[in-house]
Amino acid sequence: MDPDALAKAFVEHYYRTFDTSRPGLGNLYQEGSMLTFEGAKTQGAQAIVAKLTSLPFQQCQHNVSTVDCQPSGPAGGMLVFVSGSLQLAGEQHPLKFSQMFHLMPTPQGSFYVLNDIFRLNYA
Amino acid sequence: MDPDALAKAFVEHYYRTFDTSRPGLGNLYQEGSMLTFEGAKTQGAQAIVAKLTSLPFQQCQHNVSTVDCQPSGPAGGMLVFVSGSLQLAGEQHPLKFSQMFHLMPTPQGSFYVLNDIFRLNYA
Repeated sequence: MDPDALAKAFVEHYYRTFDTSRPGLGNLYQEGSMLTFEGAKTQGAQAIVAKLTSLPFQQCQHNVSTVDCQPSGPAGGMLVFVSGSLQLAGEQHPLKFSQMFHLMPTPQGSFYVLNDIFRLNYA
Repeated sequence: MDPDALAKAFVEHYYRTFDTSRPGLGNLYQEGSMLTFEGAKTQGAQAIVAKLTSLPFQQCQHNVSTVDCQPSGPAGGMLVFVSGSLQLAGEQHPLKFSQMFHLMPTPQGSFYVLNDIFRLNYA
């Protein structure tokens, strides 16, 4: 699978899971994983899922505008950079966001999220 | 120097150089460096500088809103995620942008940019 297709498949899976069953995101992180969400830092799969499931909105829908990816070095990692918009239930206007993921390979031939940084782009 | 201070210092240096003497950015990249600028991929310090100096605007000013950073793994790298706005000469309104850098240590104790992804956030 070529890197761009892999990045796109990851991004689709990530936001579909986020928007339908957020606790399922836990499978994508490991103990060393880091999340910085709007400047707040969290580490470890369990703490990251706790953070994501406790955000002050329940229903939401991510719409992805762009996905860029690059290999991150000899360890076989991949950087994925996303821009898009986030529609919260009950809000009239979607919020623009940017997010980056650093995916690292697992021994099983899959990937996990080592780094995750999310920011809203206030208009 | 703590990582957040290092990231902030890098970001200040990068955009000051971009806005005053763009060819000077060449020192920050190496042969394996990658740039994806608005979806267009370039590799290598020389090609990256050629790309950045040939962008269709001469004078510009970056204003940084947020800087987030995380260590990127055992190789000692650092991920830096920036949001901000870009004012082009002659344009009335600034453009919002997001950019990520993957900094890797050099044997001399400094850092170079291995990965660079830039996107405008259209309103």
